[in-house]
Amino acid sequence: MTVMWTVKVIGMGLVALSLSVELLSRLLRRLRPERSLNEVLFFPSEMACVEHIFTQSSPFSCFCSLPHGVETSFSRLLRHIMSASSTLDLCVFAFSNMDLSRAVLALHGRNVTIRVLTDRHYSAITGSQIGVLRKAGICVRCDVGSVHMHHKFAVVDGQLLITGSLNWTLTAVQSNMENILVTEEPDLVRPFIKEFHRLWTHNDPAH
Amino acid sequence: MTVMWTVKVIGMGLVALSLSVELLSRLLRRLRPERSLNEVLFFPSEMACVEHIFTQSSPFSCFCSLPHGVETSFSRLLRHIMSASSTLDLCVFAFSNMDLSRAVLALHGRNVTIRVLTDRHYSAITGSQIGVLRKAGICVRCDVGSVHMHHKFAVVDGQLLITGSLNWTLTAVQSNMENILVTEEPDLVRPFIKEFHRLWTHNDPAH
Repeated sequence: MTVMWTVKVIGMGLVALSLSVELLSRLLRRLRPERSLNEVLFFPSEMACVEHIFTQSSPFSCFCSLPHGVETSFSRLLRHIMSASSTLDLCVFAFSNMDLSRAVLALHGRNVTIRVLTDRHYSAITGSQIGVLRKAGICVRCDVGSVHMHHKFAVVDGQLLITGSLNWTLTAVQSNMENILVTEEPDLVRPFIKEFHRLWTHNDPAH
Repeated sequence: MTVMWTVKVIGMGLVALSLSVELLSRLLRRLRPERSLNEVLFFPSEMACVEHIFTQSSPFSCFCSLPHGVETSFSRLLRHIMSASSTLDLCVFAFSNMDLSRAVLALHGRNVTIRVLTDRHYSAITGSQIGVLRKAGICVRCDVGSVHMHHKFAVVDGQLLITGSLNWTLTAVQSNMENILVTEEPDLVRPFIKEFHRLWTHNDPAH
């Protein structure tokens, strides 16, 4: 009887232990969410060849005079933009950077849905890429509700926020002290998605 | 013997249970870190009286013509700046907003250590508060290493990052579409602290 008792207690103990371990590991998985991406990029960026980001080839297959195979703030920024697979919502004050324009056109060519909201005065500056994007069939709206539409943010696939002080110009990338913050933190991404939607609707030319 | 056995098993079970509960609750506290602050503010801000933020009085004790007791993007921004208790590192392209200048001067009066880094050209624009801050004894440095020092960020007490598209001007606050992101996320705050330190050292006039 005592032996049976001991066997029963040990058996129940083992069952309880294995159940607890399973429960605990499930709990841990729930409580430790996947770390979301948080990255800060500073500018001016080093100059380096970015051809391979567009052609998805080896960094050394291009023979231009710029350094090759160097990861820079600008190449990181380009990669984040080019990571879009379904949507790119862009809200930018000044847009004249040819590489950034090429990235947006490449995404358009891959059937990524692109919406561009920009400042009505700055859309006409020398070298502005807004006309180029429009001609390619990308939907562009100009802000009419403020002195300046001074945002410089993009939302990739409704999940990744790219925002900061950097306008999408060559001077900003190569000559100014600037910052770009890249985050997937939902508390930060959600308000920007909501604001983009508000501004996009507000600036619908049909209204 | 069997009764003793049962009592012992139940006793040991109770001890094991209470130990497990204690262990589990400690584990939960460890794994669920304090949620860090993440806030996004959009501008233009509604106009409202902010006098009470400076005087720490009732919002209704001021008799100016602006609405009272209204929380706005600008009042939130002011509160975050005014929350500084030890340091404020400010890196801003254009600074002409009188209320923001008043906030910085108030912190200076409370012995908060303030460092201001600004653009050398924009420090001399009409209404610039840079001269006012300098005259009050606040340490200001002008960037000499780039076309424009285009950042618009502040770090409060080495913990809270305030960054975005918004220059510290009246037009930015009242008339432009702008954003400000406020975060305590260490992965985002740390790089800005490091960059401030780099720029501050780089622009030391003694070098």
